[in-house]
Amino acid sequence: MAETSYILPLERLANQFKKLPGIGKKSAYRLAFHVLELTEDEAGEFASAILDAKKSVTRCKICQNISEDEVCGICNSAKRDKRCICVVENPRDVSAIERLGEFTGTYHVLYGVISPLDGKTPEMLKITELVARVKELSCQFKPQEIEVIVATNPSVAGDATAMYISKLVEIFGVKVTRLAYGIPVGGDLEYADELTLSKALEGRTPVN
Amino acid sequence: MAETSYILPLERLANQFKKLPGIGKKSAYRLAFHVLELTEDEAGEFASAILDAKKSVTRCKICQNISEDEVCGICNSAKRDKRCICVVENPRDVSAIERLGEFTGTYHVLYGVISPLDGKTPEMLKITELVARVKELSCQFKPQEIEVIVATNPSVAGDATAMYISKLVEIFGVKVTRLAYGIPVGGDLEYADELTLSKALEGRTPVN
Repeated sequence: MAETSYILPLERLANQFKKLPGIGKKSAYRLAFHVLELTEDEAGEFASAILDAKKSVTRCKICQNISEDEVCGICNSAKRDKRCICVVENPRDVSAIERLGEFTGTYHVLYGVISPLDGKTPEMLKITELVARVKELSCQFKPQEIEVIVATNPSVAGDATAMYISKLVEIFGVKVTRLAYGIPVGGDLEYADELTLSKALEGRTPVN
Repeated sequence: MAETSYILPLERLANQFKKLPGIGKKSAYRLAFHVLELTEDEAGEFASAILDAKKSVTRCKICQNISEDEVCGICNSAKRDKRCICVVENPRDVSAIERLGEFTGTYHVLYGVISPLDGKTPEMLKITELVARVKELSCQFKPQEIEVIVATNPSVAGDATAMYISKLVEIFGVKVTRLAYGIPVGGDLEYADELTLSKALEGRTPVN
């Protein structure tokens, strides 16, 4: 009897929602039903926001972060220190660090980490672009003034990628750093996993 | 410094996602970033699915459920018993019952429940349409053959709405029923709330 209630455009829409990250079958239908309850105008706005975002957002040719222009606002800003490059996995990480309002350097977005099991090889990431950038910088500035902060996630693949990148850019004599591992602020020693705790101990800093 | 990374089309899209039920700010951004990673074609398909669903899905003029045609497949089906109307809050409830493949009657979708605190008055629901439908049926068939199952949710508002509808249709001499309250299948007596347990006891049925 199910076929009598089968509504193709609704199924199609639910299938589209289902493709989004973190949206399961039930949520997809819930969202699809919600769209049906929007006004014609609201649905139009939603659809055009999708097309518009896809059409007008490109990648910055320097840092590869998403941008409306050929060169993004950060790479274009005179206030940003070009000698410091924070390498991150994806544009969301840029947003996360920008939200702090503390970091004055620039970014480089890799779009993933090296993970052969998931079919991600170094060629699929923006590593060549990063190396070219560092090479160019090392001609413009003293290499020891240049810092590459590899801020990939503290996972096995993130660490391996950091190591890989480090090997490639170190030859230019630049400083390569990694974000500190440790107990999260507000976290509890008692509940920290062993690896985090051991890294926290290893990276201990003097009290001043 | 945040303004330098502000990308208007992305914000607009995230805002659209944020309006969907169950999508918070973080998820909205995650979905918006995901859309940026779609191909142009995929984004186009997504947008057209929204417009298409909104445009081609209307409401059945009989049961008010969503439908591609003026009269939905269920109301149009010769296999469905027109004398049995299952009154539900929204189209998702129709889907839920249809999935069982057991119910052979028809539906009536109210689009909400009476809830003065949320500004939902009886006039805003499809109650007038239901009453007209029952009235018409009671001319075509013997009233005692007609059954209205009020399947609104077992909440205070759902119960009040059931009571309200019941009063309105009972005058035609039709049978009005409510879904059984009780312990959910696989549930545990020990963990059932008192109200459910007391309802389950009240509605006990003979073992046969």
